[in-house]
Amino acid sequence: MNDSKRKYKPRSISGFPELLPEERIVELRWLDTVRAAFESYGFCSIETPSVEEIPVLAAKGGDVDKEIYALHRLAGAADDSDSRVALHYDLTVPLARYVAQHYANLVFPFKRYQIQRVWRGERPQEGRFREFYQCDIDIIDNNAVSIHFDAELPEIVYQILQSLNIGGVSLNINNRKILEGFYKGLGIENTVPVIRVLDKLDKVGAAGVRDLLIETLNLPPPVAEKCLTLAGIRTADSSFMDKVRELSVQSALLEEGLTELDFVMTSVAHKHSGVIFADLSIARGFDYYTGTVYEGKLTDFPNYPSICSGGRYDNLVGAFSGQKLPGVGISIGLTRIFSKLLKEGRIPLGPKGPTDVLVAYIPGETRSLMLETARILRSRGLKVEMYHEERKMDAQLRYAARKGIPYVWFPSSGSRPHEVKDMAAGTQAPADPAIWFPGVKGG
Amino acid sequence: MNDSKRKYKPRSISGFPELLPEERIVELRWLDTVRAAFESYGFCSIETPSVEEIPVLAAKGGDVDKEIYALHRLAGAADDSDSRVALHYDLTVPLARYVAQHYANLVFPFKRYQIQRVWRGERPQEGRFREFYQCDIDIIDNNAVSIHFDAELPEIVYQILQSLNIGGVSLNINNRKILEGFYKGLGIENTVPVIRVLDKLDKVGAAGVRDLLIETLNLPPPVAEKCLTLAGIRTADSSFMDKVRELSVQSALLEEGLTELDFVMTSVAHKHSGVIFADLSIARGFDYYTGTVYEGKLTDFPNYPSICSGGRYDNLVGAFSGQKLPGVGISIGLTRIFSKLLKEGRIPLGPKGPTDVLVAYIPGETRSLMLETARILRSRGLKVEMYHEERKMDAQLRYAARKGIPYVWFPSSGSRPHEVKDMAAGTQAPADPAIWFPGVKGG
Repeated sequence: MNDSKRKYKPRSISGFPELLPEERIVELRWLDTVRAAFESYGFCSIETPSVEEIPVLAAKGGDVDKEIYALHRLAGAADDSDSRVALHYDLTVPLARYVAQHYANLVFPFKRYQIQRVWRGERPQEGRFREFYQCDIDIIDNNAVSIHFDAELPEIVYQILQSLNIGGVSLNINNRKILEGFYKGLGIENTVPVIRVLDKLDKVGAAGVRDLLIETLNLPPPVAEKCLTLAGIRTADSSFMDKVRELSVQSALLEEGLTELDFVMTSVAHKHSGVIFADLSIARGFDYYTGTVYEGKLTDFPNYPSICSGGRYDNLVGAFSGQKLPGVGISIGLTRIFSKLLKEGRIPLGPKGPTDVLVAYIPGETRSLMLETARILRSRGLKVEMYHEERKMDAQLRYAARKGIPYVWFPSSGSRPHEVKDMAAGTQAPADPAIWFPGVKGG
Repeated sequence: MNDSKRKYKPRSISGFPELLPEERIVELRWLDTVRAAFESYGFCSIETPSVEEIPVLAAKGGDVDKEIYALHRLAGAADDSDSRVALHYDLTVPLARYVAQHYANLVFPFKRYQIQRVWRGERPQEGRFREFYQCDIDIIDNNAVSIHFDAELPEIVYQILQSLNIGGVSLNINNRKILEGFYKGLGIENTVPVIRVLDKLDKVGAAGVRDLLIETLNLPPPVAEKCLTLAGIRTADSSFMDKVRELSVQSALLEEGLTELDFVMTSVAHKHSGVIFADLSIARGFDYYTGTVYEGKLTDFPNYPSICSGGRYDNLVGAFSGQKLPGVGISIGLTRIFSKLLKEGRIPLGPKGPTDVLVAYIPGETRSLMLETARILRSRGLKVEMYHEERKMDAQLRYAARKGIPYVWFPSSGSRPHEVKDMAAGTQAPADPAIWFPGVKGG
């Protein structure tokens, strides 16, 4: 192995992020925070395989094939079963498949959270990765899902984003029924292309959308204008209702959507003023949404892609099942948020590991004394590592300092007591491993 | 979507396990247990991408190509960067690559744990999956890794396996230097093929190994016999030393191996009598091991594959780096253990979710009372879900019972107090959400 010709110099792989230990420790804390919040609302954990059969992945609608990573054996496959699977690109389609497949063993409303990596063969760019964590919660029920869940989800997400301390966020909520009902009320038959065009508002701007509506979809200019006016409505409360009605467009579906969004806004908006908005520009690209849609943004980085998204889908599970199993859910793009704040220097980095106490290697003391000291400290819930080599104390302390270990322990078997050094304070004091605790002096 | 012709009936994918919520909740507890133990010894968490560049994966040695899943885009790749990556089949090679790549940013000895899924294109059979969790801890250091770590690792693994309550286990330890030194002492020049043959002992038995050694490797029958005698040595303490010496084979490397294994056995075996063994049949297939090797088994299922394994590798990081960075590590095959015990009915399954309390939907009470009740209970650390539909109380209680939710809460705004129902006991009593706690009556 010392032949330099045999060495392969590794490089990072574009779109596949990798963290240093001091960064990962924060990411892990974030993942714990998300999980704790999901569980505090009674959502159960599931995980699905990283792969799905390719026909399952096609259920999303839209053109996603080129984003999908399929698997193949590097050399000679023993059978062909691998050639029909590919890595999942989200956690919603796998959930729909899971519910259809395990229907008889689930209790409904089925409330699950799912924190897993997903893969997309996108061109890597800021905020877009090929492998990243998503944190999803969804509720799927027989026949109908209570609208209360549509209101509960932004509440949960808001609490999580607050706990992560990531700075300003906005959670923007809309309802597909408002869009479809409005377009239908304007006499537009096929609403899907209109929604897809409006979804590009962020990218191409109002003028670009207007051109697309008029030139590509052949909408009369006044109709296109009304679509744009609708998309311009954004309110911090239920006042969006009046603004929509001022546009004098009517349809039963529109009314239904307005009522639903009003319910959600009335339930949550007053609690989180300045964060939650009714935003009628939100469309969400995926075809499967049929009601409420959510999109979250970092307000300090308005051009950065959305950090959470989701919505209500009435027919997704139906692609795999005879039952009518509507759902509503939301996904937090944890990697996307974390990587941005890390890059912007907004994530304070601390220690490079979880250790509370380093038990020093003391020349002249027995190894069993040191092992026993570590065992006692560990039995009291402390995270303890041992220095495993007879090195100068300077070197041992330098190791603790470089890793950010807050305390170094000096075991003693003689008449002298054990001592512990507080690395931040630079002080050292006698201590008893059976009763000492960080921040408490002596023992 | 109601057109049955469009439905795709999903099926499980062979080798890619998937759990029901009540199973996953236990798996998650196991993962938490493993993580807590790793952290209690001061190991930091890292994760590496699911993919590595293909030349990196080749560093393992041996013929693994056909087990490796490479990625390709399902449709038209935008660039060719995807074609050079494949899913990792273990966490050791990615670690070696990680250390070489981030060397300047790490503190040594670098002690990391890594709990991730890995992928192998094996023929699915009992205990062999195509996607599964591995839980690895390794130590990598500059120039030399303290032998104390070789003793610490089985200690940690033993504690974890005890906490998981999985029944009888054995941790079998050997040292490659004993094998190589012994074979060299017998005059065998090329020891690698001999180790590979001995590694098949479990599969083909002593007679099969004898045949292979004599017929394929052309060893003289007495030499082959000595190799088999060595492999037959298994002791619960350091008495393996005497048994090896009785075979009258000598080499400096053999002595070194005996001394190292003696150190490990002396450090840990006495604490865990009947669990930890010096087992000179343990070879481990991978070429990269150079000293201590570990292999764990479920003693109730002796024919089941090993449930943990690892060892010391002096040159693996060197494949990617100019530095000499030896390491030692061990990997727990969590999916392999879990799936076997689940199949054998040894894992008691409980609730289908984490919820402590279900807040019932009470006709006539305001929604805000119910929301506030849930909020108060949650603020006290309880996991609380709300029943979000106005249904008969029977239906609500049935939901709680089917999910295994232990308490159902009945909010009240009038002069009557709130009440809580203990589902197991079938009792119902007044309670105050601000002070009630599970198992404590009244409030």
